[in-house]
Amino acid sequence: MIIMLKRQADERQVNNLTSWLKSMGFDIHFSQGASHTIMGLIGDTSRVDIDVIKSLGIVENVQRIQEPYKSANRKFHEEDSIVEVGAGLKIGGGHFQVIAGPCSVESEEQIVLVAKAVKAAGAGLLRGGAFKPRTSPYAFQGLHEEGIRLLLEAKRQSGLPIVTEIMDAHHLKYFEDVDVIQVGARNMQNFELLKELGQLRKPILLKRGLANTIQEWLMSAEYIMAGGNEQVILCERGIRTYETATRNTLDLSAVPVLHKLTHLPVIVDPSHATGIASLVKPMAVAGAACGADGLMIEVHNDPTHARSDGAQSLTPEAFQDVMNAVNAVRPFACR
Amino acid sequence: MIIMLKRQADERQVNNLTSWLKSMGFDIHFSQGASHTIMGLIGDTSRVDIDVIKSLGIVENVQRIQEPYKSANRKFHEEDSIVEVGAGLKIGGGHFQVIAGPCSVESEEQIVLVAKAVKAAGAGLLRGGAFKPRTSPYAFQGLHEEGIRLLLEAKRQSGLPIVTEIMDAHHLKYFEDVDVIQVGARNMQNFELLKELGQLRKPILLKRGLANTIQEWLMSAEYIMAGGNEQVILCERGIRTYETATRNTLDLSAVPVLHKLTHLPVIVDPSHATGIASLVKPMAVAGAACGADGLMIEVHNDPTHARSDGAQSLTPEAFQDVMNAVNAVRPFACR
Amino acid sequence: MIIMLKRQADERQVNNLTSWLKSMGFDIHFSQGASHTIMGLIGDTSRVDIDVIKSLGIVENVQRIQEPYKSANRKFHEEDSIVEVGAGLKIGGGHFQVIAGPCSVESEEQIVLVAKAVKAAGAGLLRGGAFKPRTSPYAFQGLHEEGIRLLLEAKRQSGLPIVTEIMDAHHLKYFEDVDVIQVGARNMQNFELLKELGQLRKPILLKRGLANTIQEWLMSAEYIMAGGNEQVILCERGIRTYETATRNTLDLSAVPVLHKLTHLPVIVDPSHATGIASLVKPMAVAGAACGADGLMIEVHNDPTHARSDGAQSLTPEAFQDVMNAVNAVRPFACR
Amino acid sequence: MIIMLKRQADERQVNNLTSWLKSMGFDIHFSQGASHTIMGLIGDTSRVDIDVIKSLGIVENVQRIQEPYKSANRKFHEEDSIVEVGAGLKIGGGHFQVIAGPCSVESEEQIVLVAKAVKAAGAGLLRGGAFKPRTSPYAFQGLHEEGIRLLLEAKRQSGLPIVTEIMDAHHLKYFEDVDVIQVGARNMQNFELLKELGQLRKPILLKRGLANTIQEWLMSAEYIMAGGNEQVILCERGIRTYETATRNTLDLSAVPVLHKLTHLPVIVDPSHATGIASLVKPMAVAGAACGADGLMIEVHNDPTHARSDGAQSLTPEAFQDVMNAVNAVRPFACR
Repeated sequence: MIIMLKRQADERQVNNLTSWLKSMGFDIHFSQGASHTIMGLIGDTSRVDIDVIKSLGIVENVQRIQEPYKSANRKFHEEDSIVEVGAGLKIGGGHFQVIAGPCSVESEEQIVLVAKAVKAAGAGLLRGGAFKPRTSPYAFQGLHEEGIRLLLEAKRQSGLPIVTEIMDAHHLKYFEDVDVIQVGARNMQNFELLKELGQLRKPILLKRGLANTIQEWLMSAEYIMAGGNEQVILCERGIRTYETATRNTLDLSAVPVLHKLTHLPVIVDPSHATGIASLVKPMAVAGAACGADGLMIEVHNDPTHARSDGAQSLTPEAFQDVMNAVNAVRPFACR
Repeated sequence: MIIMLKRQADERQVNNLTSWLKSMGFDIHFSQGASHTIMGLIGDTSRVDIDVIKSLGIVENVQRIQEPYKSANRKFHEEDSIVEVGAGLKIGGGHFQVIAGPCSVESEEQIVLVAKAVKAAGAGLLRGGAFKPRTSPYAFQGLHEEGIRLLLEAKRQSGLPIVTEIMDAHHLKYFEDVDVIQVGARNMQNFELLKELGQLRKPILLKRGLANTIQEWLMSAEYIMAGGNEQVILCERGIRTYETATRNTLDLSAVPVLHKLTHLPVIVDPSHATGIASLVKPMAVAGAACGADGLMIEVHNDPTHARSDGAQSLTPEAFQDVMNAVNAVRPFACR
Repeated sequence: MIIMLKRQADERQVNNLTSWLKSMGFDIHFSQGASHTIMGLIGDTSRVDIDVIKSLGIVENVQRIQEPYKSANRKFHEEDSIVEVGAGLKIGGGHFQVIAGPCSVESEEQIVLVAKAVKAAGAGLLRGGAFKPRTSPYAFQGLHEEGIRLLLEAKRQSGLPIVTEIMDAHHLKYFEDVDVIQVGARNMQNFELLKELGQLRKPILLKRGLANTIQEWLMSAEYIMAGGNEQVILCERGIRTYETATRNTLDLSAVPVLHKLTHLPVIVDPSHATGIASLVKPMAVAGAACGADGLMIEVHNDPTHARSDGAQSLTPEAFQDVMNAVNAVRPFACR
Repeated sequence: MIIMLKRQADERQVNNLTSWLKSMGFDIHFSQGASHTIMGLIGDTSRVDIDVIKSLGIVENVQRIQEPYKSANRKFHEEDSIVEVGAGLKIGGGHFQVIAGPCSVESEEQIVLVAKAVKAAGAGLLRGGAFKPRTSPYAFQGLHEEGIRLLLEAKRQSGLPIVTEIMDAHHLKYFEDVDVIQVGARNMQNFELLKELGQLRKPILLKRGLANTIQEWLMSAEYIMAGGNEQVILCERGIRTYETATRNTLDLSAVPVLHKLTHLPVIVDPSHATGIASLVKPMAVAGAACGADGLMIEVHNDPTHARSDGAQSLTPEAFQDVMNAVNAVRPFACR
């Protein structure tokens, strides 16, 4: 951490700051320039609250050299993390998985039919929303615990582990048999929820917030990991920009950026990112090509009658076509 | 609501759609163009899930004429809403209030001292964070219930009603004596929390999310109001853009835009928006000038030792200076 | 085009508008709703100035059904356009080309060396900047006409056609022997320059502006095509967002979106988009995988001594590695 | 300037870098940390090309302490600059001016009528577009030199100096009698045009680019000033964000930020920023309140028949109302 002091920094205050930092275990190097004094902190600064330093009257600027996250940091964990789901299914470290299913669970018939279809096409996990975050209080919000019951029935019949979203820690009691718990984009910085999930020993799929930086995203992963739950899967799902041709802008560069910064697996959701069914295939293939560890794709048996997000859902046939394209490109993926 | 059908829309499917919409109570007008058929829905569409319509195979595009929110809509409530806090303090409809205090409650001495100082300068409410959302799990997260206890002590000694942030519905038990409950930017779309707050009969200060549109913000207000709690105050606090000279970009145009769309009071938080103490005064004055119903300003007795966000805090003296400038401009505010 | 009239639209004014639109050759369909009247215009609206309609006092809202561009529109030109460069080199319609070379031309030795190296690795065109747009007036701005002379020398020695950027129509005299003229991101809406380039019969590489929508980009292509020059190649090079981990955010979804909207070839520039050499390979491979018609990649013989943008340049060896990866994935690209 | 070297920086290369920097006249301070070496450059770094330093193989990161602009920098010019227009009209340093007029000059009758009306209401300068940048090649692009002739006629009849936009240096011959030359948002980084304008000795109104940072904006002012033309007026006109309720997001915080960084006058254009006539008054008042040195407001005698941007134009009566509100708030403005 580099601290640049103001020109007229009072000597007594500088001494106080120096003593305080030393008491926290840091070595300090001073560099005296023409107009500014610079302090270099040597030691583990990942737990220093940079805002406190910035707020000091004598400080002009503070810059981290070290990243503010530790458990998620590849520097302290060089090998790719491999997240294990249920009995032996793996994501990360060369293990590629496709998570597929409808945006919302609607009925037993629907979810079982989709589960069998996506399994046949090569998906490794089944997704389906039971608790649905919706912008409008008047929109369909999911079947709740009944939705989870139906997912578990589909799991029983298809053999696929299941992924479903949690919106509030109060609902954790319904998630006991869920294989992977998803944190949606709008809850990426719901820190109380993240802390609760850190107490579990179960994989968490952490979607990127609509307007969150990669560093903020890793800090949210750190919240979960700080509680002891190291099974975090990151999911890029598009960010909010000024462009309106797609629902969000899929930030695929985030995949190789994350692979440098963290050991956690990174998957891509082209369905939510684009919001348009015909864009799912090219962006799924691009995501696999640039090194993603998996994909999350919306599939519905009858997209034109889906109760939410039908516009971006694929039919099982279209999903099979995407899987073929992804499988063709996978051997040449860039990792 | 205008529904544009695809060129090759199957007649049978169009008939099905028509029957379904009629069964929901809508009148439908058809307009046949050279290349497209357009359906106009006549009736109350605020409760129609636009995504369901969009997802239909025969639909090319859907556009709302009516806004998707109803309780918050000025069209159905022409008069400004006036939110009453405690015994007789009012916000909105010509009543202007300044909410001031530290980012975090740190000690009884600090919060009582600040409370008395901001009251003397003309503030109507005291703010202070007890539960603090922080990007890093390693940063100071507030004094929690002890923080609320100290706020209540400061209220007792100063007579100012208090505003403090809630991060999770689990904590509601600590908020019984809190006068106004704040929902922070990161929780603006924490729909489960909004629903819980809709069950209360207590003013809610709803901050705009970092990357949320004005319409999404009003939909979040609608979540609270749909539960029966109509005492919602909106707070503009800056949005995330590419500009890095300020922490966020304060969107002051949102104030007159909101005054057209909704009857709810709108206040402005120049401290969090800019993140820089010297910008608080000009942006507070500008906010008052363009018609805000109030301001929210960070004040700390000793900003250089504040435990969070000190860089944007004012001393009590600087706050008095801001109040003088705001009071001077208020009679000429544009409403 | 759909025009929604205001509730209290004066009948006489509506008649005036109707007469005016009919005089422009449109048929008009009226649809009378409970609260609004809607006019549907039937005919070719691509040349209607939507702002004029919007500005009318009786108009509430206007929405295009038809896109505002015509020459660039795939609806009126179903086949992919193939742009021919020099003697027989093709881009688009299944012809994939890689454009490679340094950000700036620095010396004859440098540009000839790089030209031969990128040709050996499989590049089809040589790029190099002679006129360089730089944010600072004090930064190196290129060798100007001498730079173009050196590029032509490199073309002579390598046989590769050349691509270089124009910054002002005054400089066109130096571009006579240039094979492809590049319009940089900052000039995407320099309409006077676009009009001049529309008078040429030479391929134009049109980069997307930093903060321009896909529709605005196509309108800029339309400016060139409206002058009669139909040889336009679009180049996605990243858009400005709040994310700072990469220089810009590469919007790869733009590739399949453009392939639906336009018949023009679309290439991807991962070097400028990311600004980081190690990200060029994964994003080049992803760009090829999602169906781009080519790539533009920065290569420098000695990136650590490049006079501009060295941080994102590849060595010839690294470029060969990228070409191998791109060639491996190309047969499975998604178009 | 602080240069952080990579961990494994080769000693010989570090020596080369040190010698090179010393040859440029810098003193260098070294600070050796546990993991990184940091070099502090002492001297005038405003003319150093930061990209060249960043591109060096041994450099991890570079950070400026000094701003990269000099002529525009308040540190080297503490007093506010006052720009003089024609015979004695001043902007900046306490002199507040309102520039008003139509988006496009349409006829002599129109421009003369508007000129007299805005003068009567208190405007100090007349604006009107003769060369109009339009997204579509098919939209009305202004009357060109005839438009300037009409503006000069309106100037003769009203006595108001005139402001009009230039789109290409080729057109400079028509601007000889124009009092203030405007550079539009889309040309803020048209560096060749900026250089030409730097050769003049005439006030330049430099609008902020749609997606440009405050620092980039000041660098564009620096381009003009580096040529010797120090009469630059900055105009905030809204930036592109994800919000669609207004055409752009007016960044009023830019006003006090600029007043800290530069001595140049700063004005605000609420008409283009919001795109909605009813928002002009509150945002004009807010702009004046936070310390702007002037305003630029669209006024048209007949907004519903304006040939461009009518939606945001005010009638002369509405403009008089805005002037009254601005004049009321001006004595209490925050500077």
